[in-house]
Amino acid sequence: MKISAIITLKNDVLDPQGKVIHQTLDGMGFDNVNEVRQGKYFEIDVKENDPKKAKEIVENMCSKLLANLVIENYKIIETQ
Amino acid sequence: MKISAIITLKNDVLDPQGKVIHQTLDGMGFDNVNEVRQGKYFEIDVKENDPKKAKEIVENMCSKLLANLVIENYKIIETQ
Repeated sequence: MKISAIITLKNDVLDPQGKVIHQTLDGMGFDNVNEVRQGKYFEIDVKENDPKKAKEIVENMCSKLLANLVIENYKIIETQ
Repeated sequence: MKISAIITLKNDVLDPQGKVIHQTLDGMGFDNVNEVRQGKYFEIDVKENDPKKAKEIVENMCSKLLANLVIENYKIIETQ
């Protein structure tokens, strides 16, 4: 089954990339933005049909490879 | 309110970055993976309290700046 993981910078970590996107949106006329923060998104298709076990596997992947837990958080979402 | 946008490559577009992550996971012992696809995630805090309008604004941003609609799809999610 497909499990999705969203990895975001922790709230107190500066996000220069998000800031640049914010400025660009501003320059394009989208002046009603308070903040933009960018993150990463992974869609992982694991050979496991039990949603709970599949989520555990992806959580393990996030903490071991995909996310840097010093500055990032991760969130697991069931896609299918 | 905060609106999230997930931008993913269309299904028939090759994702070399996802493939490398797949290989790396494989090398780390996660051998139960069928496929990994990477995407982008944006959390945009817009000055608009109506969820419908806020989503429309972010959709507009996606189609004009954040996503390349030739090769990418976007999905809007309400965060808060």
